[in-house]
Amino acid sequence: MEGGARPPREALAVLYFGNQANPNVTEYVVGPLPVPTYHRDVTVQKYRRKVPYHRRPMLGSEYEQNVSGFFLHPVGLEVLVDHSSLDIGQWAVSRVFYNGQYYRDMAQLESAYVQGRISVEKVRKAPPDGDFSSMRPRAPSAAPFPLQYEPQGPRYSVRKNHVAFQAWSFAFGMSVKTGLRLFDIRYKGERVVYELSVQEALSVYGSNCPGGMSTRYMDGSFGIGRYTSPLVRGVDCPYLASYVDVHYLAHSQDIRTIKNALCVFEQNLGSPLRRHFSNLQSLYYGGLVNSALVLRSITSLGNHDYVWDFIFYQNGAIEAKVQATGYPSSSFLHGDGLRYGNRVWEHTLGTIRTHSINYKVDLDVGGVKNSLVAHDMAFEMARAPWNPEQQIERPRLTKRVLDTEDQAAFRLQSKIPRYIYFAANSKNKWGHQRGYRIQIVSFAGDHVPEASSMERAISWARYKLAVTRRKEEEPTSTSIYNQNDPWTPTVAFADFIDNETITNEDLVAWITAGFLHIPHSEDIPNTVTVGNSVGFLLRPYNYYDLDPSIYSHDGVFFTSEQDFTACEVNPIACLPKTASCLPNFPPFTYDGFKNTSKLYCSMSHEADQPVTDFRSF
Amino acid sequence: MEGGARPPREALAVLYFGNQANPNVTEYVVGPLPVPTYHRDVTVQKYRRKVPYHRRPMLGSEYEQNVSGFFLHPVGLEVLVDHSSLDIGQWAVSRVFYNGQYYRDMAQLESAYVQGRISVEKVRKAPPDGDFSSMRPRAPSAAPFPLQYEPQGPRYSVRKNHVAFQAWSFAFGMSVKTGLRLFDIRYKGERVVYELSVQEALSVYGSNCPGGMSTRYMDGSFGIGRYTSPLVRGVDCPYLASYVDVHYLAHSQDIRTIKNALCVFEQNLGSPLRRHFSNLQSLYYGGLVNSALVLRSITSLGNHDYVWDFIFYQNGAIEAKVQATGYPSSSFLHGDGLRYGNRVWEHTLGTIRTHSINYKVDLDVGGVKNSLVAHDMAFEMARAPWNPEQQIERPRLTKRVLDTEDQAAFRLQSKIPRYIYFAANSKNKWGHQRGYRIQIVSFAGDHVPEASSMERAISWARYKLAVTRRKEEEPTSTSIYNQNDPWTPTVAFADFIDNETITNEDLVAWITAGFLHIPHSEDIPNTVTVGNSVGFLLRPYNYYDLDPSIYSHDGVFFTSEQDFTACEVNPIACLPKTASCLPNFPPFTYDGFKNTSKLYCSMSHEADQPVTDFRSF
Repeated sequence: MEGGARPPREALAVLYFGNQANPNVTEYVVGPLPVPTYHRDVTVQKYRRKVPYHRRPMLGSEYEQNVSGFFLHPVGLEVLVDHSSLDIGQWAVSRVFYNGQYYRDMAQLESAYVQGRISVEKVRKAPPDGDFSSMRPRAPSAAPFPLQYEPQGPRYSVRKNHVAFQAWSFAFGMSVKTGLRLFDIRYKGERVVYELSVQEALSVYGSNCPGGMSTRYMDGSFGIGRYTSPLVRGVDCPYLASYVDVHYLAHSQDIRTIKNALCVFEQNLGSPLRRHFSNLQSLYYGGLVNSALVLRSITSLGNHDYVWDFIFYQNGAIEAKVQATGYPSSSFLHGDGLRYGNRVWEHTLGTIRTHSINYKVDLDVGGVKNSLVAHDMAFEMARAPWNPEQQIERPRLTKRVLDTEDQAAFRLQSKIPRYIYFAANSKNKWGHQRGYRIQIVSFAGDHVPEASSMERAISWARYKLAVTRRKEEEPTSTSIYNQNDPWTPTVAFADFIDNETITNEDLVAWITAGFLHIPHSEDIPNTVTVGNSVGFLLRPYNYYDLDPSIYSHDGVFFTSEQDFTACEVNPIACLPKTASCLPNFPPFTYDGFKNTSKLYCSMSHEADQPVTDFRSF
Repeated sequence: MEGGARPPREALAVLYFGNQANPNVTEYVVGPLPVPTYHRDVTVQKYRRKVPYHRRPMLGSEYEQNVSGFFLHPVGLEVLVDHSSLDIGQWAVSRVFYNGQYYRDMAQLESAYVQGRISVEKVRKAPPDGDFSSMRPRAPSAAPFPLQYEPQGPRYSVRKNHVAFQAWSFAFGMSVKTGLRLFDIRYKGERVVYELSVQEALSVYGSNCPGGMSTRYMDGSFGIGRYTSPLVRGVDCPYLASYVDVHYLAHSQDIRTIKNALCVFEQNLGSPLRRHFSNLQSLYYGGLVNSALVLRSITSLGNHDYVWDFIFYQNGAIEAKVQATGYPSSSFLHGDGLRYGNRVWEHTLGTIRTHSINYKVDLDVGGVKNSLVAHDMAFEMARAPWNPEQQIERPRLTKRVLDTEDQAAFRLQSKIPRYIYFAANSKNKWGHQRGYRIQIVSFAGDHVPEASSMERAISWARYKLAVTRRKEEEPTSTSIYNQNDPWTPTVAFADFIDNETITNEDLVAWITAGFLHIPHSEDIPNTVTVGNSVGFLLRPYNYYDLDPSIYSHDGVFFTSEQDFTACEVNPIACLPKTASCLPNFPPFTYDGFKNTSKLYCSMSHEADQPVTDFRSF
């Protein structure tokens, strides 16, 4: 692996061939970048069959409402359009819904209205600012909130798409489809993770309105990366964070730039990473502040926003976290609507929805060959050795190697061992397999019943954790073509799990986290992130011989016999001196409302960015 | 309730009567403070019987080792002492353990040693700094970590034991036994929580050494508040936090002061509380930074440290969180030790242990009379109204009122509805019961098997959530006397749950959070907080008519048509001006190694502090 030739850089080009005898979507690998000389049709190799045209993600969106927060202003009128024909002239309204009733077409609705047979619910037209749904603050600004600064400048570096922070280093990229992804995460130069990436964000809605009840959003199909939002400094990320632009090519011949699409910053979390105070005989204090590096992007897709964080801690732990915010979904309130949510405004039913997020975690712990091991606790009954009459219920360690993909696939509702880790072939100083543990925080429930005809398209969501052998043919847990033809999924994750042996192999963990959202009055004007946050931690487990944060420059230790007010003894005592300079604040800028685009001919340059992997004509 | 006479202030005095015909512990209520004129024996009223002397928490601790981090330096010698007699002259060694073998007494051990019948494990004496177990940083200090400051000073106030922050207000106190507790938490003047307090912290250990295998720490008995640690600014809390001293009277005739025992600060969490970016027709951005108030204390009890946080968010949510750090527990490694943990150093077995933390949450949602309601999601099968051939699996809301204490007691391993909330008698603008939801984050497993003879003493740990009727006779879920006589628990929480009706009553939620700790090499020198953090959120659910954070002064909203670089439009754009002044840093001080004590006669003054509730002679 090491010392080999650098592989050629290639791009994936996705073309829609509509106006043909066999309308289809074809995927080409194009290379080498930056000046391509070859292209290769990889569609059948990837999907074992051609991709029909109807599975394509839609081009552009057609929204005509213009009220701020219009997601909360349903009027009760919905229309079903048959747009299966390639000839736009043949598109037709096949059903109309108004205030709980269905009609064959607009003419039938009109005639019923004229005959007075319709119960009309008059909805006051919202002003352009959206009234209750506006995010306009209802109070004037006052003294500013606390701010963080780096007394002697940033302690991390961002060069192109490489980040370095203390013992950490990694590369990042943005996939138009799946969003933020990290590669080659190393600690002290040794690779821990080959790939860490978002795969999909799914929402399944309930409602008594036809649009609401049939909504199952697979955001990857729309483009989790494509809808990356320009970040507002001071709100979306700390004011003094570093911001990075991304470029993409999709639904257009032009390359587009999203300014400030990523932010990188070090965050002092305001609590100790570790500490101990001793007043037993020896009087001493030791501690270390929890200051971590954060990489963030935010997706604004339609009504909702996801905040994607990857966090690097000084003790060798990595966290992936997603917070949900933005507008809740809603339907026009009528009939038995309250079976599907809470009323949140006069005519607005906040409709129940699930959130399921899938991640790919290609850990390489002490090399690519790993096994999956579970540790947990069980009680054993023992007689006290010093008194056989006394019974002791004693916790003991349980250990199990999970040999096969089937054993390593944990259903959402199943119990999962509390310590589950990727174990290396090598051992630490004390003879234990070096490992990295996966700890999931999730409130997910069932995605859809497995009997559903579309379930296989989202079958990754069956599992909170599934570990499979890494395969080039299984690069992602889903496909952008699953949204529009979920009944014939182009990629069905369930097929990845075919009971292969997973001991001492190159392994990938697929993690699903999620939660249930029942909108309530406090979702007006929109949803807060507090409590709507899920994700997982990757934590060292016998991987290092010692907590590596002991090598941090931020450590503090002093005894009662030392002068802990002296800088040389205690760096914290120096802060009034070393932290006395506030850096200049850059002026506030924001380019979020501009669509910066460049000519197509510049692609050869832009293709060097890690973001150009999806394109359509 | 309102407008009544202020109740007299009273203190609880706990006296140990040892040298008597019937040695016992007696509890008196003393009042009125600050100049008591009466005392009343409340022991039998509280516990239905006298409290035997042997149940008392021990006075003082006798540790003679003097190595930094000695918890990690076991030598393999342990001694069982029978100290049941009140006459210290009758105390006797009843068993001796060395390196896996048991001996009747020291003489038998010595004789076996002389005869060469003992396998002696030579342990190199650790230097006083503890060598590997020292928290001394292994790298010199360098550029300081990021710091937070309040550009125009604190936006909260602390007056005596009252805190105000934006719409929040509450009182805090410190119980010698149970630690940090909050009372009368109000939002916009309306009470949400009457009491929010830590109740107990339990650790159950496994080992093949006698001390380790019989350890079940109930920290309340030692004193979660008594072992409150002086806080180091810049590590335990932000440098510029506000610090508060506490005073207590226990195990001594003198009142002691712990300097900087509590900290209060506002923390900008570095991510948005909510945000939305719209580029569909209307171009706008709205958001609000997540800046919250934190109240913290830290307990250092023997080897381990708990960081107790209560966090107040701008959207009306309250979080209780505990993070564990400090030294792991250990035993001398011998024989089948690896059944009980991982080897973490040459002779050191990091022993498996559970952590279970119990909280009392006396919510009063829209008044004292509340009910407990559960909402969740279930799929229902429906035919699509527009096409009967199409089946839809549709999420719908499930609703259930939990009528009785038995229905409201959720075992650790049971499934809990995802939305469970205290519902008021009153409704919000849209007809929904106003509520506050409980959302628990926990990785707890079984506390001890229920067949255990000591289980009833810690039976609160059976339940992740139990809701009971509030009763004056059930003020706490456990007792300080449970530690030393768990077989006859003075308070058995399981008895609180006797199937009483809990609809429209004054209710209390008892919440248990916890996790499993299998020490590993990275616990050397000690345990990090990352991932060892559990707790719960109290979140508004149809309580307010609108997300109350929309009234925050920190809100940001601008459209593409506005000049968002102008201060009047966008307060964030002002930060380079309004946040340009760094406050002076106070010099570093630390009084943690001093034992400040005052004369007993000053009690009448000190008793006015909320911390004096436990005393012994």
